[in-house]
Amino acid sequence: MLALLSLGLLALATRAVGPGPREGEGPRYDDQRRLIPPVGHERWVLVGASLGLGYAASRPAEGPGAFHRVYLEPRSFDAYLETGAFPEGTMLVLEIYRAATGAPPRRQGFYEGERLAVEVAVKDEGRFPGGWGYFDVTGGPAAPFAPSRCQSCHADHAATDHVFTQFYPRLRSTAGAP
Amino acid sequence: MLALLSLGLLALATRAVGPGPREGEGPRYDDQRRLIPPVGHERWVLVGASLGLGYAASRPAEGPGAFHRVYLEPRSFDAYLETGAFPEGTMLVLEIYRAATGAPPRRQGFYEGERLAVEVAVKDEGRFPGGWGYFDVTGGPAAPFAPSRCQSCHADHAATDHVFTQFYPRLRSTAGAP
Repeated sequence: MLALLSLGLLALATRAVGPGPREGEGPRYDDQRRLIPPVGHERWVLVGASLGLGYAASRPAEGPGAFHRVYLEPRSFDAYLETGAFPEGTMLVLEIYRAATGAPPRRQGFYEGERLAVEVAVKDEGRFPGGWGYFDVTGGPAAPFAPSRCQSCHADHAATDHVFTQFYPRLRSTAGAP
Repeated sequence: MLALLSLGLLALATRAVGPGPREGEGPRYDDQRRLIPPVGHERWVLVGASLGLGYAASRPAEGPGAFHRVYLEPRSFDAYLETGAFPEGTMLVLEIYRAATGAPPRRQGFYEGERLAVEVAVKDEGRFPGGWGYFDVTGGPAAPFAPSRCQSCHADHAATDHVFTQFYPRLRSTAGAP
């Protein structure tokens, strides 16, 4: 009985939020204008991995930092390769992993430990000032970060339309590749 | 005329090798028993990224090492999640990238520079002693590495059937995760 009740509540909760969008469906929001995490982003195209990547002028040394993986929704990836631009509705997912060292036979370097966070960048010009919104969906649907948290740095320093293509081998132009 | 001749030679060369296998088609070899690089592995499932990961007991310190990306063919990924085993014909691709630091606004950490190499692990029990063959396909079709180069370490230290699942968040069991 309790189990049935729990299932019922779970179904209600799922219905209230609605399922996240699948590949090619574009961003989806709930009735509080929160972004619903996309489904299956782990199968999107990985455009870049990094370790400890940081932009701050001063930061104390504190180990290797975290791994980042950045995925791009496949339809937007295709569009970018063809046109050099990110279409309306583009979503990129940033996964953050602890840098781990404990598993043999590792003796040097770092691999990905537990996943710490999942964030999403969405190009939705009708909705976000500047055209892009940024969300931490680690715990489920989320309101956008304040513009000062992500948007201004992306606007000022990202090589292509708020996206740090300079860090992504498949996206940066070979001419300008560092 | 020269351009036409070149195109003709290119077409001949392409025909001699044949196109690489697409997603879900399994490994393919040429008439010299060399592995033909699979097509489109960049859209397979990324199972792990690492930086400078090494297994040697003694190695001089020499910077951060290289980024590794490991991709698993999607049908084998599905099978592994369902059964915990890698089916015959499984292919994993290892991409190696230089660790780069030059592009602003980076101030800390490392991102992926140029791609240095593409290697493939293939499970083909009828063809390789131990069940797995390893290939460097950076330059095109390739004969397998000698068993001492890859196979013995994979056989001795990989957590699951010659695959280093201990380093791949989606593949390792949560119970045994370091």
